[in-house]
Amino acid sequence: MPLLFGIAIYQVVFSFEAGKILFFVSCALGAETDHFFQRGVWGCMKLSAFGEKLSAGAGILSLMDDLGNALAEGGKIMMGGGNPGYIPEIQAVIADRLRAITEDEQLLRRLIGTYDPPRGEREFLQALAELLRREYGWDLSEENICLTNGSQSAFFLLFNILAGTTVNGGKRKILLPMAPEYIGYADLGLADDFFVSVRPRIEMIGEHLFKYRVDFEHIAITNEIGAICVSRPTNPTGNVLTDDEITGLARLAEDHGIPFIIDNAYGIPFPGMMYTEATPIWNEHMVLCMSLSKFGLPAVRTGIVIAGKELIRLLAGVNAVINLAPGSFGPMLTTEIVRSGEIIRLSREVIQPFYRHKMEQALLCVQASFEGLVYKVHVPEGAMFLWIWFPGLAISGRQLYERLKQKGVVVVSGDYFFPGLPPGWRHADECLRITYSQEEEDVRRGIHIIAEELRALRA
Amino acid sequence: MPLLFGIAIYQVVFSFEAGKILFFVSCALGAETDHFFQRGVWGCMKLSAFGEKLSAGAGILSLMDDLGNALAEGGKIMMGGGNPGYIPEIQAVIADRLRAITEDEQLLRRLIGTYDPPRGEREFLQALAELLRREYGWDLSEENICLTNGSQSAFFLLFNILAGTTVNGGKRKILLPMAPEYIGYADLGLADDFFVSVRPRIEMIGEHLFKYRVDFEHIAITNEIGAICVSRPTNPTGNVLTDDEITGLARLAEDHGIPFIIDNAYGIPFPGMMYTEATPIWNEHMVLCMSLSKFGLPAVRTGIVIAGKELIRLLAGVNAVINLAPGSFGPMLTTEIVRSGEIIRLSREVIQPFYRHKMEQALLCVQASFEGLVYKVHVPEGAMFLWIWFPGLAISGRQLYERLKQKGVVVVSGDYFFPGLPPGWRHADECLRITYSQEEEDVRRGIHIIAEELRALRA
Repeated sequence: MPLLFGIAIYQVVFSFEAGKILFFVSCALGAETDHFFQRGVWGCMKLSAFGEKLSAGAGILSLMDDLGNALAEGGKIMMGGGNPGYIPEIQAVIADRLRAITEDEQLLRRLIGTYDPPRGEREFLQALAELLRREYGWDLSEENICLTNGSQSAFFLLFNILAGTTVNGGKRKILLPMAPEYIGYADLGLADDFFVSVRPRIEMIGEHLFKYRVDFEHIAITNEIGAICVSRPTNPTGNVLTDDEITGLARLAEDHGIPFIIDNAYGIPFPGMMYTEATPIWNEHMVLCMSLSKFGLPAVRTGIVIAGKELIRLLAGVNAVINLAPGSFGPMLTTEIVRSGEIIRLSREVIQPFYRHKMEQALLCVQASFEGLVYKVHVPEGAMFLWIWFPGLAISGRQLYERLKQKGVVVVSGDYFFPGLPPGWRHADECLRITYSQEEEDVRRGIHIIAEELRALRA
Repeated sequence: MPLLFGIAIYQVVFSFEAGKILFFVSCALGAETDHFFQRGVWGCMKLSAFGEKLSAGAGILSLMDDLGNALAEGGKIMMGGGNPGYIPEIQAVIADRLRAITEDEQLLRRLIGTYDPPRGEREFLQALAELLRREYGWDLSEENICLTNGSQSAFFLLFNILAGTTVNGGKRKILLPMAPEYIGYADLGLADDFFVSVRPRIEMIGEHLFKYRVDFEHIAITNEIGAICVSRPTNPTGNVLTDDEITGLARLAEDHGIPFIIDNAYGIPFPGMMYTEATPIWNEHMVLCMSLSKFGLPAVRTGIVIAGKELIRLLAGVNAVINLAPGSFGPMLTTEIVRSGEIIRLSREVIQPFYRHKMEQALLCVQASFEGLVYKVHVPEGAMFLWIWFPGLAISGRQLYERLKQKGVVVVSGDYFFPGLPPGWRHADECLRITYSQEEEDVRRGIHIIAEELRALRA
């Protein structure tokens, strides 16, 4: 019983961000919560600049602190996090594989008892390379792939390898060519002013939908830019950049001799949380980051980086110095379904419909509940979020977040998702992100409460 | 068959360092090996200072490169790595647990499908805190413990939080109070000149044994020192610092208001690879780092940090920013045996005797084979290495390593294990580290070849 209760709490509470970082609020379960990320707690400890920067609380940590407090109070509907939903069919596939490994002494020994090589479990790398060659015709081999202990760790390494202070005292930045962009990137840079971002063009679609478009006219690739990075499908907006946009960005990167990083945590071939057509693209000038988290394995911590061999060797080396080795768990659980292609079928026939249904229900619920309000939803083309814009909102996004929290719904204020963008864009203060991956009934109740609050604001 | 062959290769090849970093030589299996860590490979890629530093090849990476090449040639006896040995009884315990989790839908969901909180799986933390309170009377709770994705990652975070450049442009270093010390630390610092180390006093024990002693007279804790760190049992020497030495270092650290970090990867209560009596010590000014790797779970990547609550909160926060969450695999595999105390019994009755026997056999073999040679072995009080000193060796440790490699035995030249020590100590060039964790027959053959080579050198 305590176990089941624990699970339930975990489910709601540890709903993490997009296969990556956000709401680590376990602490919220204990008395410590109130102090977890409060500033000044480390006042009596001598820290390095690294320690100060990464615990500063300016960005994501203060948000977590706040969410932790909110959760500690209990009784909230969590629409803020990024834990994937629970899909019994996927879990059954993994259980079968786990059984097979457990009953095979040699396989079990590999699963637990032998360090993986620096790029990760070789059979998985070979199977994945083969799958991508077969499926998309990409010219790659296992030497183009490196595993990391989660995708967040891959981004920490990639960003800091490609940007920050150079040995000559110069500076390079990561260009996020279109804000809003994933909050988990915001605090990853070891140097200050690590990101540059650009406002999108906003394309209206009917009265209540819109889509962000890359504004190529305002993107300048200076010598300061070390790499370009986008998430596709995009967290937080559910946007899927068009093939033209991706091709355009890829060309820009190649023309300037810098890598183009695509965060494919929600994309195809797995987990396949896309509700629109889009072509996956990769070549050796590009870095495609994938993850097993949204396939249903967030606790397994498997990030996958696909890039040119040179960068992969570098990444594997740096990862080995810092983390020693990637874990064997994720690759060994999935090698067989990658090899057989079953991972694509499961993504297409199980995972995609599961989230597509939740997305449609959430969108319908918003349309019904928000009737008469001024609002626009970004076209939900992928991932598991609705990004809602309230043009002319009388209060800031954070104030709206606070009010909703008082009413028992926890969302994320949109302003957190603009790392690298100069302040002063009103739009950034008019948006919310809500997660629809959890129980439909909770999502519905949450949306109703949001609608009520907006009506109260207007009154 | 290819699978079994693969496993065998893995076993030999990926014999990693001390639950941490060393021989990631998977690359050695492919044609790429020759180039894996060659300098200049990244010449055409623009890197940050971080990227340059961590891929520089000056330290551990060049060693790995060389080992990779050696292995690619095949037919070598590997006595260089740090993969723990295979103990069927331990694997059977883990298999039982894995079966139980797989058959329980809720447990399986926690194992794979839900992000852990920032400090790690709560039930494991509670069970471990309870075990340490019960066993040693330490005044701690789950809030004093944080898990990381492997111990190497914990050291990367701890070292760089506590040392490096400060916000005021000052500089702090990690003091390794006695060289030789673990090679895996050497490249972890984000700043230059990250470590300071001190030569030990050498105490002779009979004709062929010796023991390093902390030379307190030459340790100076200046304002530059951010923390003190030792491994106990020590990698590479197999030394176990005495209770007096540990108490003395702890007092020094406390007097100067800095943390004292003990790397307990081989120590008690688990995995318990100690062949002498020594008291485990912890208080809230100390940081005790443990690992599940040497218990037999290196591929699971579970590091454990036990420290004051303030530092634990800080560490958990920084870890969450960089790595999102610790994996659930290690804690879920071991919570029950930690709770029941069975992990201590297994460490005492299975793991300790397993390695103690290997140590005794290796030592006997050295004593028999090296007869007539000038050599001294550090008293093997813990871990899984023999550290052999050849006073007056006519060539350098690296040259000896090269010659042995030609003869088919791969060891590690001792000079790698002196991070932070000013150059010029002849002793550092007269030592070898050999691992005795693998097959007894291989260890015996390796030792014979080393003896032959030393005799050839003398002639």
